[in-house]
Amino acid sequence: MNPKDAHPKALSIHKTRIVRYRDNLKTEVEDLVSVEEPLQIVVNGKPSTITMRTPGDDVALALGFLFTEGMIHAYAQIKYAASSDENTVSIITEGTRLPVQTIERNFYSTSSCGVCGKASVDQIAAKSQYLNFGCELRVNYRELMALPDKLREVQEVFEMTGGLHACAIFDASGRYIRHNEDVGRHNALDKLIGYALQDEHLPLAVHVLLLSGRASFELVQKASMAGIQMIVAVGAPSSLAVSLAEKNGITLVGFVKRSGFNIYSRPDRVVWDD
Amino acid sequence: MNPKDAHPKALSIHKTRIVRYRDNLKTEVEDLVSVEEPLQIVVNGKPSTITMRTPGDDVALALGFLFTEGMIHAYAQIKYAASSDENTVSIITEGTRLPVQTIERNFYSTSSCGVCGKASVDQIAAKSQYLNFGCELRVNYRELMALPDKLREVQEVFEMTGGLHACAIFDASGRYIRHNEDVGRHNALDKLIGYALQDEHLPLAVHVLLLSGRASFELVQKASMAGIQMIVAVGAPSSLAVSLAEKNGITLVGFVKRSGFNIYSRPDRVVWDD
Repeated sequence: MNPKDAHPKALSIHKTRIVRYRDNLKTEVEDLVSVEEPLQIVVNGKPSTITMRTPGDDVALALGFLFTEGMIHAYAQIKYAASSDENTVSIITEGTRLPVQTIERNFYSTSSCGVCGKASVDQIAAKSQYLNFGCELRVNYRELMALPDKLREVQEVFEMTGGLHACAIFDASGRYIRHNEDVGRHNALDKLIGYALQDEHLPLAVHVLLLSGRASFELVQKASMAGIQMIVAVGAPSSLAVSLAEKNGITLVGFVKRSGFNIYSRPDRVVWDD
Repeated sequence: MNPKDAHPKALSIHKTRIVRYRDNLKTEVEDLVSVEEPLQIVVNGKPSTITMRTPGDDVALALGFLFTEGMIHAYAQIKYAASSDENTVSIITEGTRLPVQTIERNFYSTSSCGVCGKASVDQIAAKSQYLNFGCELRVNYRELMALPDKLREVQEVFEMTGGLHACAIFDASGRYIRHNEDVGRHNALDKLIGYALQDEHLPLAVHVLLLSGRASFELVQKASMAGIQMIVAVGAPSSLAVSLAEKNGITLVGFVKRSGFNIYSRPDRVVWDD
């Protein structure tokens, strides 16, 4: 590892307590999740980009980003590159032409003044108008395990190409309502929430959101904006997804399959047979 | 589907000819890939964001994006929303406060003047200095099928959390060189290329890049910048990944497993027994 990097490898794993249900057995155990944190790349004193990444190899990440985006074409242009704190890499370059106008793919609403190392969930999360909306939501644990099969039944394009992410909403009894698919998981969720907005169905406070893949910060953030109180992911959640779900009172379930699932936050919304 | 949307559902699938190897049988067949194309969202006349998405439900995607990013808080703020061409959605809002400064996660180098519907691979791809570098690369088909197992052997964090993407480089004989992991697949590749840049190992022209997941435009673009001529993905490629690989002369392999793989472009670099 680069000696100028601020992070030892161990920091890419975070311990968290979960409720695990598998093969008819419910236990409370300690589990490991991958760390996700924002990294700001500062080029010649100007904030250039923020990316949600797993800490470690931050300088290499910043250099690779500048190179693959065409902002530098040789290592000789790098005059200085180091982590200035645990979530910022500063780079001084020579002969770099930064684009005059840059178009962002996705911005975090409150990050315009600089996340800059002090980055915390509070600072980068946009505030949802539906926090503590107060709807009662209770879902039977058997319904959770049935969700992935219900999504597969309605997925059209994935079946044909294997190349799309999907998300779907169900009501509290597990009844399918709608789904969207996209090559980008954030797009699939934006489409779903966009329709709910158009149809005046927000907040989705008594619904369950199913994600076909992993649960990242960005997806929990978007779900939170729509008032979603229960997110069920087929894949793993990141550390920041778990923190944000906890902070916003969202039930976050991961690794859901026919035989079980893990609950990372607010397990009280899952109903067990006495 | 929203009547204002420009895309019928069928446009989310693209046909492509591939070389398929499975269970000891090599065939040339027509296959389906998911469509990936840039969508520009124009808010009150100003380009706001470009996202790589699967066409269809574009207006819902744009509305959902504005809402989940906190730029609008109610549908009543939308005065107009429609596709102005097949890759642009224009939205007129009332009472929207766009962030003064926005920080982009990842920009496409030549998109500053607006991809604006005319969007093509040519316009959004940064130019690699290593195109047509002229290195001979030949890889035996058996080596391809062995790559995923070799990556799993060295992956540390994924084994523990199930939550990371990985990419790795191998030499032409299938010898492991290095890998990186991250919650973001683009970050894992930027880290890998960042180290190659620091160590003056670019271009990676006689290497094979293995991706643990799907192959999107962004990943093929980044690989191309590093002079990589062969990309092997465990998951599916998108339509734009295939186009860019073809255009830049990259061999793109998808769905690699112990029993086979699909070749989407430049199959001549794969060597078969006699």
